Amino acid sequence: MKVAVFRKAHFNAAHRLHNPSWDEKTNEKVFGKCNNPNYHGHNYDLIVKVTGEVDPRTGYVMDMKVLKDLIQVHVLDAFDHKNLNLDTEEFKTLNPTAENIAIVIWQRLRAQLDDTLDLTIRLYETERNFVEFPVQ
Amino acid sequence: MKVAVFRKAHFNAAHRLHNPSWDEKTNEKVFGKCNNPNYHGHNYDLIVKVTGEVDPRTGYVMDMKVLKDLIQVHVLDAFDHKNLNLDTEEFKTLNPTAENIAIVIWQRLRAQLDDTLDLTIRLYETERNFVEFPVQ
Amino acid sequence: MKVAVFRKAHFNAAHRLHNPSWDEKTNEKVFGKCNNPNYHGHNYDLIVKVTGEVDPRTGYVMDMKVLKDLIQVHVLDAFDHKNLNLDTEEFKTLNPTAENIAIVIWQRLRAQLDDTLDLTIRLYETERNFVEFPVQ
Amino acid sequence: MKVAVFRKAHFNAAHRLHNPSWDEKTNEKVFGKCNNPNYHGHNYDLIVKVTGEVDPRTGYVMDMKVLKDLIQVHVLDAFDHKNLNLDTEEFKTLNPTAENIAIVIWQRLRAQLDDTLDLTIRLYETERNFVEFPVQ
Amino acid sequence: MKVAVFRKAHFNAAHRLHNPSWDEKTNEKVFGKCNNPNYHGHNYDLIVKVTGEVDPRTGYVMDMKVLKDLIQVHVLDAFDHKNLNLDTEEFKTLNPTAENIAIVIWQRLRAQLDDTLDLTIRLYETERNFVEFPVQ
Amino acid sequence: MKVAVFRKAHFNAAHRLHNPSWDEKTNEKVFGKCNNPNYHGHNYDLIVKVTGEVDPRTGYVMDMKVLKDLIQVHVLDAFDHKNLNLDTEEFKTLNPTAENIAIVIWQRLRAQLDDTLDLTIRLYETERNFVEFPVQ
Repeated sequence: MKVAVFRKAHFNAAHRLHNPSWDEKTNEKVFGKCNNPNYHGHNYDLIVKVTGEVDPRTGYVMDMKVLKDLIQVHVLDAFDHKNLNLDTEEFKTLNPTAENIAIVIWQRLRAQLDDTLDLTIRLYETERNFVEFPVQ
Repeated sequence: MKVAVFRKAHFNAAHRLHNPSWDEKTNEKVFGKCNNPNYHGHNYDLIVKVTGEVDPRTGYVMDMKVLKDLIQVHVLDAFDHKNLNLDTEEFKTLNPTAENIAIVIWQRLRAQLDDTLDLTIRLYETERNFVEFPVQ
Repeated sequence: MKVAVFRKAHFNAAHRLHNPSWDEKTNEKVFGKCNNPNYHGHNYDLIVKVTGEVDPRTGYVMDMKVLKDLIQVHVLDAFDHKNLNLDTEEFKTLNPTAENIAIVIWQRLRAQLDDTLDLTIRLYETERNFVEFPVQ
Repeated sequence: MKVAVFRKAHFNAAHRLHNPSWDEKTNEKVFGKCNNPNYHGHNYDLIVKVTGEVDPRTGYVMDMKVLKDLIQVHVLDAFDHKNLNLDTEEFKTLNPTAENIAIVIWQRLRAQLDDTLDLTIRLYETERNFVEFPVQ
Repeated sequence: MKVAVFRKAHFNAAHRLHNPSWDEKTNEKVFGKCNNPNYHGHNYDLIVKVTGEVDPRTGYVMDMKVLKDLIQVHVLDAFDHKNLNLDTEEFKTLNPTAENIAIVIWQRLRAQLDDTLDLTIRLYETERNFVEFPVQ
Repeated sequence: MKVAVFRKAHFNAAHRLHNPSWDEKTNEKVFGKCNNPNYHGHNYDLIVKVTGEVDPRTGYVMDMKVLKDLIQVHVLDAFDHKNLNLDTEEFKTLNPTAENIAIVIWQRLRAQLDDTLDLTIRLYETERNFVEFPVQ
């Protein structure tokens, strides 16, 4: 009996979209306002989906307090109230688009979860722009 | 031409998480605050997804008023303003976690729907904790 | 590395559900209040999902400003502040149910997107009634 | 001990903004897309606020089921799935702007409530445009 | 320069509406489903509004972390995952309607705040039923 | 006949809370994570409330398109996708707390509105932290 469980979290971060191998003009043309060298920021809403068998003893796929703590340690402590470009390892060399942030969060949490569990990340950059990885 | 149609509903219920085959200490350790013997409660938000062919005469997969009434009779009349552990048959012996409530709602509605229609249940226990069955 | 990106938009429109091959009584019985000959209306919320490979140069599946503009030109300019039955080509002969509106929006946007991209439409007629096409 | 109690409801209606004493050009200039002669529509969200003393026997300012029923009979039955310009008495001669709809709803409900209770209407035409009457 | 600051919190609790000085029939007639002797429950959303002068050194009316902690200790620790009728002092003798819960939360927080600050409580029992105290 | 009309907008910005007359340690103690020298950011939701007489010719307090444009030019063009501390005049010397941002937005819009209209600003820094100016 497989069920998907979801946990919502959020973090507030600054970022800037930029490709260092391009000149300034191309960056501004491709990324527009998101290329502001002084950064801008977002309230990121994160939905973590974990799929697995329901444990008949608990009625849980996994304890949501455990999932909440994994998100806290491996995502929020690293990203909340941070400048993604300057304060994190991953985005010193990777452009912090919503797509790439979702992939990085998936990699961080995938390493913490049992192999029997599937993982999907949905990340809202704004209420109107959001992404999901991997594709369902 | 298959389309998925969704109907949102909600109910307010009390519950308690508990495994009667465990002692008190284990229950408290596993279920924490949710094990309170005096119960606590939630506003459950329910999203029922039905997938099927669009009827070319109506442009409907199914009449949403019919789906609304099925949810009213087979879910809300049974669960709304109830104590899930004490007032329902299913949860006298089954732990009323979000996972198990979603499975029970699926079973109740599955029995009412034509075989040509697929059914998925999403259940929000809080805005931050929710589940989906079956897995998509 | 495939990621799904979502863009939310909305439009406000009047419509009426009606099957011209049926008599008045049957229409009223099947479509109820939605058959009002003077029309009623909705704030339609639209979520467009596009799935594709992340471009390693930009970190984008596609530029959300481009997607936003495609939705503006091919959906909002045609449907916003319009009477769907009277002011649009498609719904002069097709019943403007949520199911059919989602299919029409899919057809309009599908024609604008590269073949390497997948497209899904979710349309909210109200907060409680919504549809998705194609089925996932 | 005065408390304010709020009840949320909604209705879906078509309307058109128009001043019959003006020519077509002026109407189009002032009301823009909202002047479409074929109408457009909205999901109106309504929040009714009633202020009064808490009854020490019930702990209620008023029974919310009674308020819900008053809203149903005096607002929703009149406006839901209707064309405000054609199907209602008030808006045959009054322009159905959000401002005027809020005033009319206030008048309809004010007549039903005890004089000891205060009444305020908040009406959402869209998530981004809403009004309140009377001014607080 | 006075500004109002708001902090949102939530708690999940069971309750039952009941007046012990009335017989069973009257209680059922007045409180309906909310009188269920086995209790039901809610996700209560709480918005605490504090009004005061902006401190020119910090730009704060008050530190939101301090307000968050006051809400945690004086409201959430007492009410979250509790049965309001059985597990709290106040509601052993006071009917736990939304009106009375808002007044009790106001009393609990009022005792913690400086006299120069004003306090208002808004409490959502459901998305559609909510209250505010004191009246504004 | 006075009515309040509300228009919702949003902008995404980076900021840092800091008092330059304090040493680093005091700043970190008072502002915590919000003092990050590399900045963090938010999706700010803004609700502009304008109160005035309903014009009997239009049924409007003011044209919402005009209000939308004023917000665009005098708030969004200045703040959206900006670093509030570095890219704006006001917050080079004023700490960009939610309280101060609301006051600055009020000053910017107050200068654009007719004296017969009242103005209130509500600003959401997150869904859980928000402010209002002036006090109502």
